[in-house]
Amino acid sequence: MTDAATNMRLKLPIVCFILQIILIILFGVLVQYDHDTDAKEWHNMNQSDYDNDFYYRYPSFQDVHVMIFIGFGFLMTFLQRYGFSSVGFNFLIAAFSLQWATLMQGFFHGMHGGKIHIGVESMINADFCTGAVLISFGAVLGKTSPVQLLIMAIFEVTLFAVNEFVLLSALGAKDAGGSMTIHTFGAYFGLMVTRVLYRPNLNKSKHRNSSVYHSDLFAMIGTIYLWMFWPSFNSAVTAHGDDQHRTAMNTYYSLAACTLATYGMSALTAHDGKLDMVHIQNAALAGGVAAGTAGEMMLTPYGSMIVGFLAGIISVLGFKYLSPILEDKLKIQDTCGVHNLHGMPGVLGAIVGAVTAAVASTDVYGKGMGDVFPDVASGKIEASYQGVRQAISLAVTLGIALGGGLFVGFILKLPVFGAPSDTICYEDSIYWEVPGDEEGHEEQLTAVNTAETEKLNS
Amino acid sequence: MTDAATNMRLKLPIVCFILQIILIILFGVLVQYDHDTDAKEWHNMNQSDYDNDFYYRYPSFQDVHVMIFIGFGFLMTFLQRYGFSSVGFNFLIAAFSLQWATLMQGFFHGMHGGKIHIGVESMINADFCTGAVLISFGAVLGKTSPVQLLIMAIFEVTLFAVNEFVLLSALGAKDAGGSMTIHTFGAYFGLMVTRVLYRPNLNKSKHRNSSVYHSDLFAMIGTIYLWMFWPSFNSAVTAHGDDQHRTAMNTYYSLAACTLATYGMSALTAHDGKLDMVHIQNAALAGGVAAGTAGEMMLTPYGSMIVGFLAGIISVLGFKYLSPILEDKLKIQDTCGVHNLHGMPGVLGAIVGAVTAAVASTDVYGKGMGDVFPDVASGKIEASYQGVRQAISLAVTLGIALGGGLFVGFILKLPVFGAPSDTICYEDSIYWEVPGDEEGHEEQLTAVNTAETEKLNS
Amino acid sequence: MTDAATNMRLKLPIVCFILQIILIILFGVLVQYDHDTDAKEWHNMNQSDYDNDFYYRYPSFQDVHVMIFIGFGFLMTFLQRYGFSSVGFNFLIAAFSLQWATLMQGFFHGMHGGKIHIGVESMINADFCTGAVLISFGAVLGKTSPVQLLIMAIFEVTLFAVNEFVLLSALGAKDAGGSMTIHTFGAYFGLMVTRVLYRPNLNKSKHRNSSVYHSDLFAMIGTIYLWMFWPSFNSAVTAHGDDQHRTAMNTYYSLAACTLATYGMSALTAHDGKLDMVHIQNAALAGGVAAGTAGEMMLTPYGSMIVGFLAGIISVLGFKYLSPILEDKLKIQDTCGVHNLHGMPGVLGAIVGAVTAAVASTDVYGKGMGDVFPDVASGKIEASYQGVRQAISLAVTLGIALGGGLFVGFILKLPVFGAPSDTICYEDSIYWEVPGDEEGHEEQLTAVNTAETEKLNS
Repeated sequence: MTDAATNMRLKLPIVCFILQIILIILFGVLVQYDHDTDAKEWHNMNQSDYDNDFYYRYPSFQDVHVMIFIGFGFLMTFLQRYGFSSVGFNFLIAAFSLQWATLMQGFFHGMHGGKIHIGVESMINADFCTGAVLISFGAVLGKTSPVQLLIMAIFEVTLFAVNEFVLLSALGAKDAGGSMTIHTFGAYFGLMVTRVLYRPNLNKSKHRNSSVYHSDLFAMIGTIYLWMFWPSFNSAVTAHGDDQHRTAMNTYYSLAACTLATYGMSALTAHDGKLDMVHIQNAALAGGVAAGTAGEMMLTPYGSMIVGFLAGIISVLGFKYLSPILEDKLKIQDTCGVHNLHGMPGVLGAIVGAVTAAVASTDVYGKGMGDVFPDVASGKIEASYQGVRQAISLAVTLGIALGGGLFVGFILKLPVFGAPSDTICYEDSIYWEVPGDEEGHEEQLTAVNTAETEKLNS
Repeated sequence: MTDAATNMRLKLPIVCFILQIILIILFGVLVQYDHDTDAKEWHNMNQSDYDNDFYYRYPSFQDVHVMIFIGFGFLMTFLQRYGFSSVGFNFLIAAFSLQWATLMQGFFHGMHGGKIHIGVESMINADFCTGAVLISFGAVLGKTSPVQLLIMAIFEVTLFAVNEFVLLSALGAKDAGGSMTIHTFGAYFGLMVTRVLYRPNLNKSKHRNSSVYHSDLFAMIGTIYLWMFWPSFNSAVTAHGDDQHRTAMNTYYSLAACTLATYGMSALTAHDGKLDMVHIQNAALAGGVAAGTAGEMMLTPYGSMIVGFLAGIISVLGFKYLSPILEDKLKIQDTCGVHNLHGMPGVLGAIVGAVTAAVASTDVYGKGMGDVFPDVASGKIEASYQGVRQAISLAVTLGIALGGGLFVGFILKLPVFGAPSDTICYEDSIYWEVPGDEEGHEEQLTAVNTAETEKLNS
Repeated sequence: MTDAATNMRLKLPIVCFILQIILIILFGVLVQYDHDTDAKEWHNMNQSDYDNDFYYRYPSFQDVHVMIFIGFGFLMTFLQRYGFSSVGFNFLIAAFSLQWATLMQGFFHGMHGGKIHIGVESMINADFCTGAVLISFGAVLGKTSPVQLLIMAIFEVTLFAVNEFVLLSALGAKDAGGSMTIHTFGAYFGLMVTRVLYRPNLNKSKHRNSSVYHSDLFAMIGTIYLWMFWPSFNSAVTAHGDDQHRTAMNTYYSLAACTLATYGMSALTAHDGKLDMVHIQNAALAGGVAAGTAGEMMLTPYGSMIVGFLAGIISVLGFKYLSPILEDKLKIQDTCGVHNLHGMPGVLGAIVGAVTAAVASTDVYGKGMGDVFPDVASGKIEASYQGVRQAISLAVTLGIALGGGLFVGFILKLPVFGAPSDTICYEDSIYWEVPGDEEGHEEQLTAVNTAETEKLNS
């Protein structure tokens, strides 16, 4: 299956090396340790070691890190012959995106005398931005080359930082767990990219666009890690103290309720009552997405459970009834169903966040209002207006995501980036040295594919 | 393999939705944020953010969470055709149990003005209670429908909370890592359930009650995670400071010693000296179980190692010699051998805890006595009497577990819950859409099983 | 495949039991809780619970623990028929080594009135020492019996503690992440052992010295966990505060840059531009190794990225061009390529550390100098001399590693330890009860191997 168009021998090294060297130069010029990581700065003040933000945030950071690399990476290994690419390209574009995000977010979040200051909070934010790119990756999974993915990441990280700046700084919205900035943005961006990259003949690769027994188990590793650590994700950058604590707990209960809804809906929508692994692997996570905005608010435990319950129902219904329509009518080929896991639950989360913000009162928040809604606490705005801000933020996010995806999709269509042909999508052996499995399956497959490729080329 | 009896199309959604809606209503009526998660309450007092219990306990909570969902879930994937159910039903019943446990434990552990207050400590306790249900799941693995498992969880969580209340509150026993409350209780409850559900013709499914090469590797993921994070499990709810620290360390050494004992015994008891994966996957963990009660005490490092060493030996011997007897003579079909991993080591842990408590002295504990044995520190009782309390607690636990298991076992026999027939136990495709594997194995299997089922039904 | 020579029925139990009993006795005589784990000691002073070192280090410890047991264990499962041994022997020798390391390191790091005091820092150090043994295991993977591995561990742990004492205490070098003490030491020790154990007829087992599709995915679990948690590894025992924070961040960026270099180089060095899983699984981690010494210093983020970038390039080149030469010319059969992942990047890390130390100045470190270079801060030595110390430390490490490996290699050649014959290397079924896989593959393999063994024996 060697093919001049998809051969990465020069393309991938050139892109990787140029990007990394640019990153090193920009880091050299622009990036500095922040107050908590710089030896001199930190020791300039007489602080207890415990005040270092490391101890407040590093355990959460590591949980988020696991979600990005194991969670997203293995979740996508469900395809029978795309495990190397799922974990491997996830790894590559995440390693690039977190560096690029450090720069883009640092640039928009405020420079210090012309320098970007970094520490554990910027690392978490970089991982968050990476998450959005990986969500978009899920939409185009199996149909793009690693070079396309890196190009996509360059633009998406940049637009993510712009959108995040507009929401959090310009509009003053709250979105600690990223229902809007990460999930809605990543999903609709990716959906628009896959729409532009629509492949009418993708059914030629249909036989590989499915799972086998063990690939579904590998995918469950991703699912369970995402599920377990979502409380850390949503609480990773909230204010210290009760805020981190409450956010983690709200997410925990939202996810638990979502899981029961998912199992119930999966059995209910199957003609023979059998559970579908696709639903379990994805829809059970929708409760985490949907608690991303309101998780830090006084959503109450039962409120969180209602949100998770609805998210699970919506997500399974999406997989069952909406995805086929999107593909047939709107020509959106969404490999991982990111619309069902991140898109709709992200929008739900944004709406829940707007409503919860709008009804916030000092009766409920007390002096804790300042942590969650500083402008409401300071009397600058009413709570209801905070709700409006949140709603506007959702609209802005959808706009930037769809517009950005449209633009980037057309860039990715350039033939130079080495996309696979329609007959060899969802296939590791285009970009990877693939060992045989026990039955020499791969050799066979290669033979078939080469034949197909030749037919197509002739 | 569609069968009216095991068809979950209505049963599972009804149970999931009713349970979740009841949970939401009860949470709405009864549950509130505690002092450390409520925005108003937390900010009412002038506390350093670091005093929030989140920072003391959340990393431990996440380790426990991994044990519950990855540890238990993957440990049970050793069966060749039951990986979806092992991880998937583990996921379902854990997501239910942790919500239900929040209510039951909150009810028994003391209400605050008619309300249950929740935070990270209650989350850990809910996960602990869930652990007991999953242990029982191990005993009946492969022979029960998801509806049966949810019904079992309803009762078992309730009885767990009763037993825990009797031990920790009424009797004043100590059991931070749950040798009694979690392991002994979960194991003997599950063993009694599987005894009541005895299937004389289970050998018709014998060919599926074994592992294949890769399923054993998936199971090792579960084993290793349980092993690594057991120090966090045993120390998660002990007192802050030296107590958490010491408990984690005692457990670490107990497990290390247990591992060497397990490898030695596994080779010794095999006729050709070959190691048995079943022993490694399970018995190497017995040291964590056995350190569950005494881990927080001044057990000393070498004392911990002796405990782990004995636990490993007992556990392998149990797998090798006792399990066949239990099955043949007592008709206890214990799929995962929970008697060997949780039952006997749990009893050992309870005894070690009683003895260690009985010899506690102010010479050794100093002012730290108050953290571990408050009643001894206050002079209310002698240390020796604390030992008696511990011993009584073991007896109470065995009684409630066996009695409860007997009762619940008979409830689960009701045919309406959709148990699989004897010929199709240990088989995912009854309850799951199962993809083929590379060789179309599943289709074959289905054909065979359908034939078998028809034979049986005729 | 039962063979008197490799039969472990008596050998393994004898070694396991004797070692464990000796450990228990030595722990009983020599080991005590330290100030932070002892109930009486801790409560003797009026300290805030938060000052307990547990809260500073335990989350890092658990990350390191995951690297040792999941990271190293699963990284080595890439071999098609050696997954049980990779994870299982990793588990066994790690469980032994961490106990033995507690004693050896305690002995060299300073006794307290004839007693070794232990707590979370000693647990991390014991895990670190275990890491070196597991690196050496990677060099001999597939060619050694579990008894040989335990014997190797006894000696290697001892020599590790000697080398660590010379470097950190006698020479006053800094090596928080162990570029020298762990990676360079473990790699060259293992390479020398495998040199002494050279097997001229190893090509008889060549067909098993490769991966299959799913074994490469299992190995990626190990890779990703090592990659994610390396920031915790390098920062686990650095000083509290900015030092832990900075070290984690430097390592994070070093690894990210290393990953892009690895992907670029892997495609560039393949004749058809296809990525090689061996490179991704291993070389992408070299950035963590190379940041092991300088990570705690003021290496700057872009400095860290340069180090990671170089490490990735060197590592892939090593796999591609150097490993075949080492095997053909120097007769070093390095199963996992530890020279490329730990050897050369370790040496690079040592050199980077020496240079970074030599240029340290108060301008940059301020009052933080005392944490990183206490002798420079106190005016005892110049920074340039600290650089000399670091360089000498590298030479000492190489000397002790190579000398020690030579010695231990000859000991392991004793036939009594049950090494497999050349025809049945890389094969689980010598030491494990191996279930069939779906195709009865194992039985076939056994038959072939038995035939081969008979041929060889006749």
